[in-house]
Formats: sequence, structure tokens, C-alpha cells
Amino acid sequence: MKFSNPMANAVRALCMDAVEKAQSGHPGAPLGMADIAYTLWTKHLRHNPSNPDWFNRDRFVLSNGHGSMLLYALLHLTGYDLSIDDLKRFRQLHSKTPGHPEYSYTPGVETTTGPLGQGLANAVGMAIAEKVLAAQFNKPEYAVVDHYTYCFAGDGCLMEGISHEACSLAGTLGLEKLIVFWDDNGISIDGEVKGWFTDDTQARFQAYGWQVIANVDGHDHEAIDNAILEAKKCAGKPTLICCKTVIGAGSPNKAGKNSSHGSPLGESEIRATRKALNWHHEPFDIPSDICNEWDAREAGAAWENEWNTLFKRFNEAHPRLASEFTRRTVGQLPEDFSQSANSFIHSAQAEMQPMATRKASQNAIEFYANLLPEIIGGSADLSGSNLTMWNSSQPITAENASGNYLFYGVREFGMTAIANGISIHSGLKPFCATFLIFMEYARNAVRMAALMGLPNIFVYTHDSIGQGEDGPTHQPIEQLATLRMTPNLDTWRPCDAAETAVAWKIALMRSNGPTALVFSRQSVKPQARTDDQLHKIERGGYTLRPCEGEPDIILIATGSEVPLAVEAAEQLINLHDIKASVVSLPSPSVFLRQESTYQEQVLPPHVTCRLAIEAAHVDYWHKFVGPAGEILGLDSFGESAPGEVLFSHFGITVDNVIAKARKALAKRNTF
Amino acid sequence: MKFSNPMANAVRALCMDAVEKAQSGHPGAPLGMADIAYTLWTKHLRHNPSNPDWFNRDRFVLSNGHGSMLLYALLHLTGYDLSIDDLKRFRQLHSKTPGHPEYSYTPGVETTTGPLGQGLANAVGMAIAEKVLAAQFNKPEYAVVDHYTYCFAGDGCLMEGISHEACSLAGTLGLEKLIVFWDDNGISIDGEVKGWFTDDTQARFQAYGWQVIANVDGHDHEAIDNAILEAKKCAGKPTLICCKTVIGAGSPNKAGKNSSHGSPLGESEIRATRKALNWHHEPFDIPSDICNEWDAREAGAAWENEWNTLFKRFNEAHPRLASEFTRRTVGQLPEDFSQSANSFIHSAQAEMQPMATRKASQNAIEFYANLLPEIIGGSADLSGSNLTMWNSSQPITAENASGNYLFYGVREFGMTAIANGISIHSGLKPFCATFLIFMEYARNAVRMAALMGLPNIFVYTHDSIGQGEDGPTHQPIEQLATLRMTPNLDTWRPCDAAETAVAWKIALMRSNGPTALVFSRQSVKPQARTDDQLHKIERGGYTLRPCEGEPDIILIATGSEVPLAVEAAEQLINLHDIKASVVSLPSPSVFLRQESTYQEQVLPPHVTCRLAIEAAHVDYWHKFVGPAGEILGLDSFGESAPGEVLFSHFGITVDNVIAKARKALAKRNTF
Repeated sequence: MKFSNPMANAVRALCMDAVEKAQSGHPGAPLGMADIAYTLWTKHLRHNPSNPDWFNRDRFVLSNGHGSMLLYALLHLTGYDLSIDDLKRFRQLHSKTPGHPEYSYTPGVETTTGPLGQGLANAVGMAIAEKVLAAQFNKPEYAVVDHYTYCFAGDGCLMEGISHEACSLAGTLGLEKLIVFWDDNGISIDGEVKGWFTDDTQARFQAYGWQVIANVDGHDHEAIDNAILEAKKCAGKPTLICCKTVIGAGSPNKAGKNSSHGSPLGESEIRATRKALNWHHEPFDIPSDICNEWDAREAGAAWENEWNTLFKRFNEAHPRLASEFTRRTVGQLPEDFSQSANSFIHSAQAEMQPMATRKASQNAIEFYANLLPEIIGGSADLSGSNLTMWNSSQPITAENASGNYLFYGVREFGMTAIANGISIHSGLKPFCATFLIFMEYARNAVRMAALMGLPNIFVYTHDSIGQGEDGPTHQPIEQLATLRMTPNLDTWRPCDAAETAVAWKIALMRSNGPTALVFSRQSVKPQARTDDQLHKIERGGYTLRPCEGEPDIILIATGSEVPLAVEAAEQLINLHDIKASVVSLPSPSVFLRQESTYQEQVLPPHVTCRLAIEAAHVDYWHKFVGPAGEILGLDSFGESAPGEVLFSHFGITVDNVIAKARKALAKRNTF
Repeated sequence: MKFSNPMANAVRALCMDAVEKAQSGHPGAPLGMADIAYTLWTKHLRHNPSNPDWFNRDRFVLSNGHGSMLLYALLHLTGYDLSIDDLKRFRQLHSKTPGHPEYSYTPGVETTTGPLGQGLANAVGMAIAEKVLAAQFNKPEYAVVDHYTYCFAGDGCLMEGISHEACSLAGTLGLEKLIVFWDDNGISIDGEVKGWFTDDTQARFQAYGWQVIANVDGHDHEAIDNAILEAKKCAGKPTLICCKTVIGAGSPNKAGKNSSHGSPLGESEIRATRKALNWHHEPFDIPSDICNEWDAREAGAAWENEWNTLFKRFNEAHPRLASEFTRRTVGQLPEDFSQSANSFIHSAQAEMQPMATRKASQNAIEFYANLLPEIIGGSADLSGSNLTMWNSSQPITAENASGNYLFYGVREFGMTAIANGISIHSGLKPFCATFLIFMEYARNAVRMAALMGLPNIFVYTHDSIGQGEDGPTHQPIEQLATLRMTPNLDTWRPCDAAETAVAWKIALMRSNGPTALVFSRQSVKPQARTDDQLHKIERGGYTLRPCEGEPDIILIATGSEVPLAVEAAEQLINLHDIKASVVSLPSPSVFLRQESTYQEQVLPPHVTCRLAIEAAHVDYWHKFVGPAGEILGLDSFGESAPGEVLFSHFGITVDNVIAKARKALAKRNTF
């Protein structure tokens, strides 16, 4: 009989009761997917609740993250460090059970989900990471990398465009250890999906090259079990298991209705559901026999021990490979990394070659990728424009996944969320690239990387009107400000090869958040620096051109506008008798994390006459220049014309820097 | 023989020569699609080059906008106001032939394309508009709305997630007059797409409920013609015509290669191509017989005349309907609109009911939608949360398109780009809705609306940490700043029902750009206002609580933080003897367009002690408060907890407003 399994009903009870207690949350998906979850978690998922970080665990992603209570119930019941009291604090401040699953907040939560479709793309990334690492490390008899990635996805996830991007690529790459369960309950927030979602999903995923197991009764444990067994047998293809379910299953009056989706069932309906499920225990009271049957700690420890034994033998047979594996999976850089990086930075400084910073970036990739085989690069079909390939970059394909470069195709959002999944998996260090303007297609995945604190690197080239003829659709204006205001995201816009080399170094060394590296299409003149200045680049901002004595005005610039500022400062000093210094500020967020004495040394508070110069939206710079200052930038869209014509058209010129500087000085003098 | 048609080769020649002259651009797609374009434009497309605004013309969208020269060549040859000299100025400043097609820049360009996939979604929007208007206006024997929407799309468009969102919905809505040509040339920028794009596209689109005409030779005019005829016959389904083409077709050495995609062919290859095409005319020299054969002005005038005659008869038979049709298609509001709106605004003010501004928005929609039958609403599966349905809203379905509400499904990006297409079409006034945070999924389409100057309305609810338990994935922080920095986008964050009613009015009256309306989930206390204050809301900012004499400090607030500011000001005056006034600033961009005397009246320059209060990223407000001021806001991600707990946790409280105000005053006193 359906809904009679007490193990699954324990999950249902915890979910409906926790949502009711919080008076907030989504009972529909947890009740509807309880049977699938029960079957997967008790019969297939290999994990160790006592060590959520065990490397070779199966990954589980709840892409329909609003069903968070389902995951919390599973984590609690299988023995993770998540108590019944934690469940009682569902959706309360600083509880381990926030409204949506949050990475690093709750043991066992593999990724933050909620923004629909992204969890699915993260899962694709995890499955890519598994496949790549297996190809790079496994040896005959030593399959040290060998796990599945399971993902639950709802109708919402499959309607989102990112599901197309990620699943299409998953098919191309033949990710056979990715198994996705579609919660086909026919309901979304607005009601019955048949009014707005009529895809033949089975045919759609077959078109992507997936194995599709259709028409599985998502409340029939045996059918689900068989589907998973079949999924595991399929070679060379990811699998979609289409599970027909009833949203809110078990609730006599709300099952199958959107009223069960996102609101507590309510006291009386919960009573009725208890009765229907034959579940007569108090809220949050799970009988010990059911708890014991759910408890996966013993099995988990055995699985991990088995793997540890395998790894020990692997270590004996392939000691160098094993130690490299350990280094990479704990996320440690090689010992000499910083030293090697510094010598590269010195050589980049010494060369003094004019070049586009995207080209300088490619040189940096060339250097760092040779030090760090964990780097996995890629571009959304702009490899030759982003300059993200290097001499030893090798494409990752379905047949040979031992490479280090992903041709993501024209899929910016999917790419970024996939890179997030790769980053979460451990063992690889992803960077991915597109034009700065098309960061917008991927915008929320960039934010999710920042929210999760993932050390991803985003390479964004063609960073301003300097992009030129492609015109306003391709020219970023407000995008730099957007990135800089994203909490926990560091953004660098270097002005030459030396700053680029430093930006890459700091991005690669960062462990608790992502970095956006923003590069020019056009060539930029290099800057001379003392050793001290070179060393200070990594502080995010420094005085590049000091003047004698206290400056009358400080020019602040980034990227391709730094040479303009330097030239203007020279003219101000030599022709106008104005003491102007130049501060290069490639990364405002990094600069603002420096101790205040350093900040005040670079931008002395009493030097209130300041001019910021950047070919981007002016509004960002008010915080640095204040009302006694001026800003030279843009606040309108770009135009289509050669880049140098546009700089002149929009007035980003040495003459205008000088004019604005004099205006700022005149303004100060009237205060 | 292939490539022997001089009409098609005239297009090829213009395209390769213009790209060569500009030394910038994309010859590959134009050369590859010249035969499809020739067949469509000479045998099927009904348009009038002398009147690009003729209402009933077929719409043509080049979704792979980088092939802009193809469109410019077609427009020139068929007789639009686009001279050969314009073509010679391809990609030059302020020419009518910018790098990507730009709406309102070039006669005959229906929409701005370049950001891949969005043109396709715009085309879906145009086809929806046609279907809806036909259902609303056509009468037996009077098919005054009756045209096709044709769209060219490349591999890049089809890889983008937005193609999934838009085409899935197009299938559900049965848009039988939408005909899309897939330029299946097997090449994208990174090379042969088989390494990253292996979809069975035919099966994919069939899964969406499309008719798919597969394996059409894109260089065989008869095959193309037959495919279009077949497409037109299909009832109830949009059609995808899969055209096998060769990128750069005609170029002996670069055809079929990505080297022809995005760079000029080069002088010697152009010579070789001329020879291969048997085209011996000078660059930009098109023989007059070929010009005459291309010229569509006569046919176009006849088509338009025919329609004008039909419309005249329609006007006689259904005069009120015809005059309403004219009013709507020229984009005129009813004469009494402003007056009616003002009386609604007065009643919203008089009621003084505490309510969530999303609820106030629903009331406004209820009122304005009754005045404006051209309103077409919708939400990305959050109708009940965004509160975007009204009493007489009726769903638009495949079977009955006479309604005024689109259930977009969970497709934020597709929704927004579709709404852009609806807006471009004329005759309808779209608004569409999601949570403010998920604006990010649609971000670049919002920007495109601003770039094109479309009067779209974007409704964004759940506007801050006040959103509550859903946590940081659902709580906007930096999003308001992002919207405000988007050129030509007006953003309103009203504080109560009266401001909401005004914001909707101004958004509906705006004709040259989009408006984002940002609303709270939680209830907000209403503000008392004089008639003068009520009237000044539409200036974007005004003094809501003046104080006696000159203020010591000005508190600036928006939305749900206005009541906090008002309460704090009262305490500052009564308990601390500090003269504090409150400025409500619902729309900074609108405020900054007011004459400077008004701005200085609201924010007198000499009152430098200012405090901005907003539950959003602090960085935006520096431009309004300066260094003598303070900002109370956030610069980190949110948390999961009830909304009121979060306001307190993040310190957005009356006590903190008072503390910050005193700090600002102390700071001023030390200057």
C-alpha cells in the first residue's frame, strides 16, 4: 500500500512538522519525494554521516532547494551532526537548518540551492569533476575516484534555461555517473503546469544524449530501486529518472495541489495527514527502531574504511600520485607556489611589453597552469577571444576526460554553475571565461559562488568601450560596479602584465571566495615600478606615481585608464604646476581589507581633492572621491566604433583628466 | 549550381566588402545564410521598405545579430532608407550600420540583437503579440492583425538557455505564425560544435511541440521555399526549419571554417571569393538590374495599400474597435488617463491602510488594467507571491489568446526577453514579474529593454531581507544598485500605497524606457501627506517630513525603511533636540532628472549632514550623502529568519538610525 512505509513517513512527519513549527517553508516537495529519497538514501547512496567530507562519497544535490526540510530530515535520520533540536529551529536565525540548504552551514549539504536549476548544473559540475579526477588519478585496480552524483530536480529546475545548458553539455560529455530524478508532480506555484510547461521531457533529454527512464511511479519503492539499478548500468550516458509523484503526498486534502507547495499544511490538515499515514507519534518524535534503521553511520564508516584501505594500497603502489591526490583534494598549493609566482611577477614587470591585459592573462595562465595541474579552464565559446587556452591545455571529452580544458559552448550561466560544482567537489581549481558583459547571463551563479565562498576564478575580457566595434550590446558600463558590490567577490582590473600576474596569483591563493579577473581587449602601455610598488600590488591599491611632497590631487585609476592617469599627472606637474599623484586601484575590495594605516597612506584623508578615472559607470567611485572630488567615466551606454574613437568620443582622454583635475582643485578652493 | 544566384551573391559581396572595409565584423553567417535570406525576403516576407512602421508587416529578427551585415544588405537592397554610403560606414561612430543591429537606429531593424538567444525570445514575444492582438481585434472578414514572425538563429542561440525557455513556451502557446530558421553550419567560435553541442535539435524542438522541418539544404532555394510553404501550412505549432549551411559559403578557403566567423576574409580571399562566385563588380557596386530585382518598395506599397483598404472597411464596420486599435498601436494612452490616475492616487493616499507594497501594487494593477486593456501581465510562476493577477485578468492560451495574462512558467530570462518582443511589436503594454533577486536570471534582457528604450514594466517583489525565512539566496542586497546604475532604466521603490500608485502611473506613462517597480513582501505603515507632497512623489524624491527651520540632518530613505526614518526623525526632534527632516527618494534617477532648483530644495547642498537608510547595499548611497554623511544599510549577504528578526539582526532599526544620525552630526562638528 502506498504511503505505508514508516521510514518514508518519518521523513514526511519531520518535514510537515518542522514547516508547521516555523510557520514557513515548503512541505509539498518533501512529502512528494519522500519515497524516492527513502529508496535512494537507504539502498544506494554511499556516504558517511560521521565524515561529511569523505572524498569518495556519493554526492547528493537537492536542486529544488525549497524542499530543504527533506534534506535536513535525511541528514538527521542517517546520523549527520544535525539534531532534532536543529530541525525544530528550521528557518530561524543562525540555525543549522536555514530556509534553503546552505553549503558549509549544515554538515552534509553539498551545495547551496534555491535559485532554480543551478543545483542541477552544480551536480553536472560534480560529475565532471569525478570523471576528470578518475581519468587523472585512477589506475588499474585502484579506482580511488569512483562515486555517483545524484540530483533531485523539480519542474521549476527543468523549465529554467540553465537546465538546457547544463544537461546538453552533460550529454555531450557522457557523464554516466550522474543520475537525476525529476519530481514530475505536474504542479508549480501558479498551479497545474500543463498551462505553461508541456515539454515532452523524456524526448528532450534523449535529444541531449541521456538515458531516460520514463514513467516511474515515484511512490513505488521497488520501481524506484529498479530504475536506479538500470541507471547505474548505463554506460556513457547520464540518466534522467522521470518519477511521477503527487506533491504533498500523504496529505488527504492538499496532496496534488499547489496549496501544499509553499505554505505550512496547517494544524488540522497535519492531524488528517498523521491519520492517513498511520503515523501517531508526536511532532519531532521518531521511534527508536525507525531511527536505528535510518542510521547510516555504521555502513558509512565501513564504506570509508574500505576506501581508506584502497587508498593506502594506492599510496604504496603510486606514492607520488597519491601524495599529489592528497595535496589537491585538501586544496593545498605546492610549497614553492608563492615563490615561483613572485619570480614570474618580477619577470612580467621586467619585460615592460605593451599588450592587452587579456594577453597578459594568457601568459599568466601559461605559467600558473604548469605549476598547478588542478587548474581546469574553459570558456563559453570564446577561447580565442578570452585567450584562455595555453600550450598544454587539453580538451576534456566524453572519451578522454584526463584533460584540463572544457569547451563549454555558448552557455555562460551553465558554465558558471558547473564551475561552482567542480569547485565544490574538491580536487580541481576551475576558471571559466566570457566577455565581461555576458557575465550578466551568468550573474546569479557568480553571486552563488560568492555566497558559498568558493575559490572559483572568473575571467572576463573585453572590459569596456575599448571593446570597440561590437557596440553597446557588448560594452560593459555598470558591470564592474555590480561585481564590486557583490559581497565576498573580489574583482581585479589590472593595468598591465605585472598587475595581471599578481591578480592571478592572489586569485589562485584565495580559498574562501571567488575572484573576477577583468581584462582589456586592447593593448595597454606597461608601467614602471619599484620593487616596493610591485610588492604592494597585492594589497589591491597602491601609489603608482608619487609626487614630491603632499599631492594637491590624487588621481585614482584602474586597468586601461592607468596610463591616461599617469600621463595626465605628468602634464599636471610639468605644465600646470599641480602636484598630482596616481593611485592604481586594481581591486577595491582587497584594498579596503588592508589595515587602515596602509589605506590612509595611499589615500590620505586630508587630501580630499581626488579624481577617479575609469571607463565604466561613474557611480561606483563616489565612495572614493567624495564631494570635493570628480569622476571621469560613463553613465550611458556605449557605441559602435573603433575603441580609440570611443575613448575620445566619451571623453576618456588625457585632456579631460587634466580638465577634470583642475575643476576638482577649483572646487576645493571654493570650500 | 550552388552559389551562382547573383541576387544572393550581391548580398555576399556587400557583406564581405563591408566587413573588409571596416576591418571588423562577421562575414561567416551572412555568407552562409545569404540563400535563405534571398528566398525568404524575395518570395515570402511581406513588408514595406518605404514604411518600416507599417503595422501588419511580417517581422524579421536576426537573432544571430553578429551577422548584422546580412540584415543591412537586405535592407539596403530592398529599398529601406539605408544607402550604400551607410553600408560603407559599417561599424563607424553614429553610422546607421553599427556592429550589431540596433532598434531605432536603423530603419527596418526590428530589435537589437547580439546577446545570443534573446532575438529568438523577442521573436516569440512578437508572435505572441500578433496572436493576442488578432484574438482581440480580428473579426470575420477583417483579419487586420495577420502577419508572420520570421527569425534566423545560429548554434549559439540554440545553446543558450534562453532558447529553451522561449521555445518551450512558444510550443505551449501554439504560435503557428512563428517560423525560425536554424543556421546549422556546425561551427561556432571555438571550432566544430560537435565537441560541445551534440543535441538532436530536431527531437528537442519536437519535444517542445514544434513542427520541425529537418535536413533542408540551406543553399537550395527551392528546398528553402518549400520548407517555408510547409511551415505556413502547419496549424497550431511554431516551425523550426533546420537549414544545413556552410559558414562563409562562397569563400574557397575559409568556407566551413571558424576562421570565417568573426574576422574579415582578407583581401586575397575576397578576390578568390569574387572569382568563385563569378562576381566581378567592384566593392559596393551592385548592377542596377540586380538592384531592381531586389527592390521591394512597389510590392511593399501594394501590400500596405491592400491592408489600408481592409482597415478602412474594418473601421466602417467596427468603428469603436478600429479607433481603439489605432490608439493602442500608436501607443497613446486614453485621454483621461492622467486625471483618472490622479484620483486613484488620492484615494490610495486617503485610505492610509498599512499593507505590503506588493499588495498596493496589486491594487494599482487592478485600477490601471481596467483603464488600459493593452496591459498584458504575467509572472515567472510567482503570480500569488508577486500579486500580479487582477479580477479581470484572463490567461492567454494556445486555444484562446484573447486574454491579458501570461503564465510564463519558471523562465525569468525568457519572460523578460519575450516581454521585450511584445513591447516592440506595438499594441500591447507588457509587465512581467518575479522576485527582485531573480531579476538576476533575466538581467541582460532588462538591460536590453533599457538600451532599446522600451516602455516595459518589471515588477520585482520581496525586495530586501524583509523577505525573511527563505534566506540569503532569496534576499537582494546589491540588486537595487545594479538596477539604478543601468542607463535609461527607472527604478522605483515606493514606501506605501500612495507612492506605489504614483510609481505605476509614471511607469505606464513612460514611453522611452523601461521601469523596474520594486515592492516589499511585508506590510509597511502608510505615510500622511499634504496634497503638495502627494503631487511631488512623481518627481522621484521629495521632503516627506520637513522640520522647523533648516535641518541639522536630512534622513534619506526608500521603501520599507521610510517609516523607520520618520519615527527616528520624530525622536531626534523630540528627545534629542536635533532638527531632522526626512526625504523619501523612491526613484533616484527620476529625481536626478528634475531641474536643479528642485533638487537643491529637497537636498540643500549646504546641509551636508545626511543619513541614507535602505535595507540594501550601502555603496549606492555615497553619491547622496557624501563623506560628512552616514549610510545605514548592508554590505553582506542576508540570513534565514523571520523578516523582523533580520531587520533587528542587521541593525536596520530606529535606534540605529538615531545612533548613526548622531554620529554623522558629531563628524560634521569636527570638520
